[in-house]
Amino acid sequence: MRSPTDNGPAVSRQEFDALFEQVRTWGRWAPADRGAWNRVGADHVRRAAALVRSGTVVPLGRPWDTAAGPDNRRPALHYMSDLGDAETSGPSGPSEPSTHKDFVGADFHGKGITHLDALSHVAYRGRLYGGGAARELVGSGGARFGGVGALGPLVTRGVLLDLPAVQGVAWLEPGQAVHAGDIAAAEEALGVEIGEGDAVLLRTGRFRRRRELGPWDADAACAGFHVHAVPLLAGRGIALLGGDGDSDVRPSPVEGVHSPVHTLAVAAMGVPLLDNADVEELAAACAGTDRYDFLLSVAPLNVPGGTGSPVNPVAVL
Amino acid sequence: MRSPTDNGPAVSRQEFDALFEQVRTWGRWAPADRGAWNRVGADHVRRAAALVRSGTVVPLGRPWDTAAGPDNRRPALHYMSDLGDAETSGPSGPSEPSTHKDFVGADFHGKGITHLDALSHVAYRGRLYGGGAARELVGSGGARFGGVGALGPLVTRGVLLDLPAVQGVAWLEPGQAVHAGDIAAAEEALGVEIGEGDAVLLRTGRFRRRRELGPWDADAACAGFHVHAVPLLAGRGIALLGGDGDSDVRPSPVEGVHSPVHTLAVAAMGVPLLDNADVEELAAACAGTDRYDFLLSVAPLNVPGGTGSPVNPVAVL
Amino acid sequence: MRSPTDNGPAVSRQEFDALFEQVRTWGRWAPADRGAWNRVGADHVRRAAALVRSGTVVPLGRPWDTAAGPDNRRPALHYMSDLGDAETSGPSGPSEPSTHKDFVGADFHGKGITHLDALSHVAYRGRLYGGGAARELVGSGGARFGGVGALGPLVTRGVLLDLPAVQGVAWLEPGQAVHAGDIAAAEEALGVEIGEGDAVLLRTGRFRRRRELGPWDADAACAGFHVHAVPLLAGRGIALLGGDGDSDVRPSPVEGVHSPVHTLAVAAMGVPLLDNADVEELAAACAGTDRYDFLLSVAPLNVPGGTGSPVNPVAVL
Amino acid sequence: MRSPTDNGPAVSRQEFDALFEQVRTWGRWAPADRGAWNRVGADHVRRAAALVRSGTVVPLGRPWDTAAGPDNRRPALHYMSDLGDAETSGPSGPSEPSTHKDFVGADFHGKGITHLDALSHVAYRGRLYGGGAARELVGSGGARFGGVGALGPLVTRGVLLDLPAVQGVAWLEPGQAVHAGDIAAAEEALGVEIGEGDAVLLRTGRFRRRRELGPWDADAACAGFHVHAVPLLAGRGIALLGGDGDSDVRPSPVEGVHSPVHTLAVAAMGVPLLDNADVEELAAACAGTDRYDFLLSVAPLNVPGGTGSPVNPVAVL
Repeated sequence: MRSPTDNGPAVSRQEFDALFEQVRTWGRWAPADRGAWNRVGADHVRRAAALVRSGTVVPLGRPWDTAAGPDNRRPALHYMSDLGDAETSGPSGPSEPSTHKDFVGADFHGKGITHLDALSHVAYRGRLYGGGAARELVGSGGARFGGVGALGPLVTRGVLLDLPAVQGVAWLEPGQAVHAGDIAAAEEALGVEIGEGDAVLLRTGRFRRRRELGPWDADAACAGFHVHAVPLLAGRGIALLGGDGDSDVRPSPVEGVHSPVHTLAVAAMGVPLLDNADVEELAAACAGTDRYDFLLSVAPLNVPGGTGSPVNPVAVL
Repeated sequence: MRSPTDNGPAVSRQEFDALFEQVRTWGRWAPADRGAWNRVGADHVRRAAALVRSGTVVPLGRPWDTAAGPDNRRPALHYMSDLGDAETSGPSGPSEPSTHKDFVGADFHGKGITHLDALSHVAYRGRLYGGGAARELVGSGGARFGGVGALGPLVTRGVLLDLPAVQGVAWLEPGQAVHAGDIAAAEEALGVEIGEGDAVLLRTGRFRRRRELGPWDADAACAGFHVHAVPLLAGRGIALLGGDGDSDVRPSPVEGVHSPVHTLAVAAMGVPLLDNADVEELAAACAGTDRYDFLLSVAPLNVPGGTGSPVNPVAVL
Repeated sequence: MRSPTDNGPAVSRQEFDALFEQVRTWGRWAPADRGAWNRVGADHVRRAAALVRSGTVVPLGRPWDTAAGPDNRRPALHYMSDLGDAETSGPSGPSEPSTHKDFVGADFHGKGITHLDALSHVAYRGRLYGGGAARELVGSGGARFGGVGALGPLVTRGVLLDLPAVQGVAWLEPGQAVHAGDIAAAEEALGVEIGEGDAVLLRTGRFRRRRELGPWDADAACAGFHVHAVPLLAGRGIALLGGDGDSDVRPSPVEGVHSPVHTLAVAAMGVPLLDNADVEELAAACAGTDRYDFLLSVAPLNVPGGTGSPVNPVAVL
Repeated sequence: MRSPTDNGPAVSRQEFDALFEQVRTWGRWAPADRGAWNRVGADHVRRAAALVRSGTVVPLGRPWDTAAGPDNRRPALHYMSDLGDAETSGPSGPSEPSTHKDFVGADFHGKGITHLDALSHVAYRGRLYGGGAARELVGSGGARFGGVGALGPLVTRGVLLDLPAVQGVAWLEPGQAVHAGDIAAAEEALGVEIGEGDAVLLRTGRFRRRRELGPWDADAACAGFHVHAVPLLAGRGIALLGGDGDSDVRPSPVEGVHSPVHTLAVAAMGVPLLDNADVEELAAACAGTDRYDFLLSVAPLNVPGGTGSPVNPVAVL
């Protein structure tokens, strides 16, 4: 058994910066706001649609979590704004129908809410993806580059890397790093190969562990990719990276960089991230059909200048 | 040219109640929370996926509208919660990466935000779909029946009824009713037939009109279905009804019922509604390929007990 | 030293109901929405103003707490909506001045935010103060009786019961009950007598303890009044009850009643409650002048139908 | 009768900058965050308390306005979070008491909500009061200088300048400027003299006009002070400026400066502003006693780094 904090090897800042340069795709696409989603052309969409076999639809969005907890420091809001008592009555009795309405709100980045990170979410050394200065491009009205509204939805092939299934464990322990070799082993074991334009979803088993052992501070320790695994993903030309964590192993193995996979994916590669997706049901569905690729649709709210969006991603097998 | 308030014929409450009984499907499905979405089985999903030809992806979500206006009385909220200045610095300088975060919130029912109505949204004579008492089933914590979290996502065949295209006008005028004959004429003209499990989207041209003439109070006057058109839709066994309005023609032609199509669809038929979808780009895409059916994915946020959700529906042609 | 859970003696539901009847003032005042604040006539206001000696102004509002914690389960919201970059520029350069704006929000009842409870906050056996049915009077649009907007502000004599000072301890332990005898001893020791129309503030030392030992779940255990102390307060004709807790000792000593002092004060006596007021600085000011009464001003936001309001109460010595 | 846009005379930017220098008080006080509130020493508080004669308490806060309108572009939020149905039941029946709770929220700057502007609200030529760079001092976490939490409450003498009463009109027309001569005439007519440490409240009759004629866009046209009147107020050493508008006459008479009185008061003089206070009832109370000064208490929420706060100011006559 690995140590709960087997997050290494340690990476120096210099080495990290070299990695950043290695995987950087600035200037490759237009519109730049969509980054690596530009890889997903009409052909990819058609091929993804052709993956639908059983017609099973699996949502990946966690329940809107309004309870504060160690992995939900900014709980989502849900208030009823009308309980059927707000409509005015007419002269001949109560007006019909009665309606029920609600308010939802969320400061959604963090560990509690299934959400997408748009390209404006992350800046490294003050630069957003493409090289623009974050201080100039992001203001109180939102982001003028890399907003989630400019990103729009993604429909592509999804691939699930079910690491616990491959390793024969219930879940990866918090702090456990996923390496390039683990990815290769998963492809082999699961019979799937990550290709260009794919959405790669990592299952660490976080939500099974959470249901069985309770929540923990996933900012302090969670399983995720080690930065050394990123070049493999970059080489495959992925469009989206995500899973049941936030892709980064924590604690971070990189000196002075708290979220190095975020940095490489979003700021260097233009790859949006899908955080906190509950892939437990998806894993069961994949296991049941012994196929680990599927049609994935991720449709962020159309928030102009937003840095991301809560989402309910949908896998269709 | 029709009158701007050609919303008739007038319908008595007695006639409306008979319509309600005629189209009522209470007790037909389990789980009842999903209502007519139970019509969409695995076969439907597979057939919908098979509709993908060009691989064109079209989002239908309006921009998150934070400006109050005559058709946006409860403007959406969007605040930046982090502009790259919130992370604490470490001993050796600022910690990296800097991140940008935001809060989004919405009291989304109404005329301004693209959203889905779950089955708990509407009660008629105090009864939700299925007959349960709204007062017992919906409380300040949300709905115990018909919540959007229990509804989940929909992936099915979408059909666009582009009425302005059929009628050779830029848009339907506010207040103009769409009748069964109009639907039949549209099917004929557009070469599409509404079938079981379909999501029917009505284009009235509202958002083209809004862009050209400015916003207006769509609660007072908007184009939409007349209740007499609902039995045709019920007979076809549709799963979802929606479009660029809220499906109801306004003013309502029904005595004492402000939203009769909402009532029939949601409370009688168990058909969720998709309101305020911007189908202008979709109409252009359909016209360009001369095909008016497509894969439609609608993925509401997973809000337990929510009466609906803001959404960004996705059509794939 | 007392036990941390010395919250007794236990009180049966029957005994509690007798207490409720004993202190009940339903029907005594008009407007009933103001309850015991009707005791504070112009004379009281004048006498309170005459208490000002040193001219020292002491605010009692806790800092707006946006961090979730064991005593702050629904953290307050604070977002900047304008950082000086939202105003449009004019033809001759940026328009001046630049302005900074923010959004504040709170689901303020609970243990984290200094707030006032209006008479609509609490119902016992389905009845609000005055006997109206809560189910009829409080709806999704707010309260039609006992709203904080109808309550308005209070300016009266405040009295601080600094129990730790009297008992020579740093603070009362969580769970420690304050009895009638403790009140009497405090009046004696502090040289102050509670009279009609007074606002009684209890210091348990909670916020000193919190600063020194960290936060704890104050719903599970906090110092406060035992219900047997309430008749003394009722007999004095107080207008407001409050302090650094929420007035109730927790765990509750009353069978089946989680907040018995809330129930007696608000629902039986019509006495609004002031919860979570930080009285540490006030205690020091009182000790410094050896006077424990002062002018107190509590000005809730004018929310029509609100069940209370976050406040920043002001003591003037 | 004056023209509805008699907002002049026009003021050049150069002249405005000279005015700014003339009234500037940077560096005069510590703590600088409290600006001109440092003028209100213990003596002022005592003298203010001594003004209480009749014991009449008058709140000045407008009702929390949740309806969007021409003068309320960002409507306040008020949602019920508990309607007595959220508490868990115990083994022996429903737990008591039932409680009602709510969420309040507001992006409060603007024309709809009674609020205080702290010193961090306004920057001129990039500088806050005291000369610090706004860009350095105000971030997404709030203001590090001039936050409303550092400002705290104000208790001082208030003076009402009831201009419509002096001029024998129902209200000042939107766009009508109040000049130094008008202030002097009001002092003479009302028998009151503005002195050091005073809170000056201007009544323009806005809310009477609003009630009689309906709301209008108060950003486009409202009565308020002309900048030429500011030196008189500065010379008197006022601590707070406010009233039923936002102190600025609109349209602005100053070239390139949309809110010149805001700029002079907040950024040059360190005088917080009280906007949108409903002084109609206060005016009646003052007229009834023929006295136009009183004790004023303004207690902003204790929001660390906030640029202001919704408030319910209280006048005590």
